[in-house]
Formats: sequence, structure tokens, C-alpha cells
Amino acid sequence: MTIEGGEGAGKTTVIKGLTRYLEQQGYEVVTTREPGGIPIAESIRSIILDPVHTMMDPRTEALLYAAARRQHLIERVLPALESGCIVLCDRFVDSSLAYQGHARGLGMDEVWDINRFAIEGAMPDLTLYMDVDPRLGLQRIHEAKQREINRLDLEGLSFHERVREGYLMLLEKFPERLIKVDANRMIDDVLLQVITETAARIKGFSYLRVK
Amino acid sequence: MTIEGGEGAGKTTVIKGLTRYLEQQGYEVVTTREPGGIPIAESIRSIILDPVHTMMDPRTEALLYAAARRQHLIERVLPALESGCIVLCDRFVDSSLAYQGHARGLGMDEVWDINRFAIEGAMPDLTLYMDVDPRLGLQRIHEAKQREINRLDLEGLSFHERVREGYLMLLEKFPERLIKVDANRMIDDVLLQVITETAARIKGFSYLRVK
Repeated sequence: MTIEGGEGAGKTTVIKGLTRYLEQQGYEVVTTREPGGIPIAESIRSIILDPVHTMMDPRTEALLYAAARRQHLIERVLPALESGCIVLCDRFVDSSLAYQGHARGLGMDEVWDINRFAIEGAMPDLTLYMDVDPRLGLQRIHEAKQREINRLDLEGLSFHERVREGYLMLLEKFPERLIKVDANRMIDDVLLQVITETAARIKGFSYLRVK
Repeated sequence: MTIEGGEGAGKTTVIKGLTRYLEQQGYEVVTTREPGGIPIAESIRSIILDPVHTMMDPRTEALLYAAARRQHLIERVLPALESGCIVLCDRFVDSSLAYQGHARGLGMDEVWDINRFAIEGAMPDLTLYMDVDPRLGLQRIHEAKQREINRLDLEGLSFHERVREGYLMLLEKFPERLIKVDANRMIDDVLLQVITETAARIKGFSYLRVK
């Protein structure tokens, strides 16, 4: 399953809380996020985030995200699923569709095409979308300053509003797979909904949905 | 226009001779090859060719080639075409179709999908395929040793035979755009055909075929 959302939506905290819950229920859990320490994927990501690369074309960026996704899927996600673990992945295909496809204007269908090539049918059973007002999200990040500012953070507020718009379109497009969680609330309320939604669906997880 | 072919087909020599001819005819010529000194494309290519990256999945590799192609197209090829130059590109989409699509078994249609995303309709007016027996090609490279051995050179002979097979399929698929040149011959004979074929078609070049 995957956790999605804009900047400052609280994905990291949610993943920690959900992992603790799932482990208490006896599941083996692997939490990860691209590039996830996979050397090839890390090298690719460092090209994307290098502030020197101001000339990077949006299509180049989308292809690089798809390449890093492929390698992370092959080396980290699929082996974990094959050994029977639940994989909690912080961002996956939906991030590319919302960020590159919608917010950068490449088109969701076009970006889906290259991601389809990258993942070969390995879609998550469940995706929790942490929905947060972009103003609140960016404010949280600014206050926390837990990590370095990268090129994406420097984009303006209107970009993050388009990202949210993209996610809301995906919610309409994939109502079975995507669940919206109101992440403007206090973390305890958010986590309660996250755990409830996951618990209701986890028995139906196929563990490995590769065509 | 693009020049294609397996290892040791003599593309570099052909490009030099063709450039001299075209310049004598009064054309402004830009010769290039991916990644072509474009910093983002160079960084991507160095990930692909790094011998440390033995775990690289063929789909990751194909996505990285498409990403480097995109950036090189945007920064080098399109500006040259827009200023009225003839662009001679050493390898382009057909290399990905023959190498990744056919020789590595990803499927030409699948690899075409991600390249379509990368180039957005910017296909060459003419592609000259330098056809060489893989044994002769590899022997030439070994004798010349003009450049460092990279990961692709280390592939076995059967890989290069599959690459050739892929190019021959492309010749059947795109008879209008692709011209086969017998590159097993002496360079003077090869160059004569290259110049003749190009001269016969150059008036019809659209210079900029972006949809």
C-alpha cells in the first residue's frame, strides 16, 4: 500500500503510527520510499534534486522519476511482497500523476504511460491520500525545518495547489483504490482514520499484484 | 537526420565525411550524439554506463536513455533545427528500439511508448543504418581501441547479433525513413553510398518536424 499527499501533509508521522499498529496486529511491515537507499535509484534522484539542474525539462524529470521507481520496485518492493510483508511506500505512481502529470501540465495519461512501463502492473492494493491545505502544509514544513530545502520546495504556492487538485482528480478516477484522509486535523485524529481505513481493507490485500 | 548501427559500424567516420560533404554544399551542419555535453544528459548517461551498476533493470536503463534523449533534444537538437541547421545525430530512437526493445527483449512497442513521450514527434527526416556483421564490428573496435571498454561492450556476440536483428526489423517497419548502408565494405565505398542517399533526400527535409 502507498501513502500520498502534498508537502507537510504529515506522511512520515502517519507511516510511523500505522507501522506500529500493523506490527501489533502481527504483520511484518516494510516501510520504504523511493529511492530508498537503492544505489541506482539514489543516483537518479540526486540528478533530479540537484539545484544546479535548472534547465531540466519536465519530461526529463518525469522519465527520471519513473526510472528510479522501477529500480526501487525491483530491488526493494517486489522482494518484500514476495516474502509476505506488507509494504508501506511513501509516495508512488500517484505522486508522478499529481506532480508531473497535473501540476506541471504534462497530462496524467501521458505520465501514466511511462509509469505503466516502469511498474508493469504492480499497483498498490490501497492508497491513503493525506489531504492538507497547501498553506498549512508549507507552514508546517517551514516550522519544522527537519530537512534541507530542495528544488521542489522552492516552487510557489500555486504549484502546490495544482498538486492538490491533481490528487483530488485521482480520488475521483480511482475511488476503489484511493482513500482521502483529512490531514488538516491533529495527528491523533488523522491516525485514527488511517488505522480504521487500513484495518477495514487489509484482509483483501493480494500482497503481490503483478500481472 | 540520424546515423544508426551496431558497435564498430564506422558511424563516426561516416559522420565526419558526410559533414564535410554537406558543408561543401553550403549547409550549416551540427553533429551531435547523446548526451553531447549537456550536463543533465551527461549525468544520466554516467549512471547507465557505470560498471558498478550491475543490478540495473533493463526497464530502468530504457527509461534513463529516454530521459537523456529528451534533455539532449531540448537543449541541443531543437535549437539547432530552429536556426536552420542540418542536425546529424549519432544514434537516436532507433538505438533504443534495437538495443532495449529487441536485443534486451522489452518489446519495441513498449520502448517506443516511452520514447514517444520523450521526443514528442521530433522524428528524423532520414536515418542511415550502417549494417555490419557483428563479428567484424567487434573486431574493428578491438583493433582500434580508441575508447574505454564500457558495460555495453562487455555483452557477448549474441547480444550484438540481436541488435542487428532489431535494426533489420526497423528497416522493414520504416522503409521510407530508414536506409540500409552496407558497412562491411571499405570506408570510401560506404561514404559514397551515404552521400548519394543523403543528397537524393535532403531537399525534402522539413528541418523541424515537431508536432
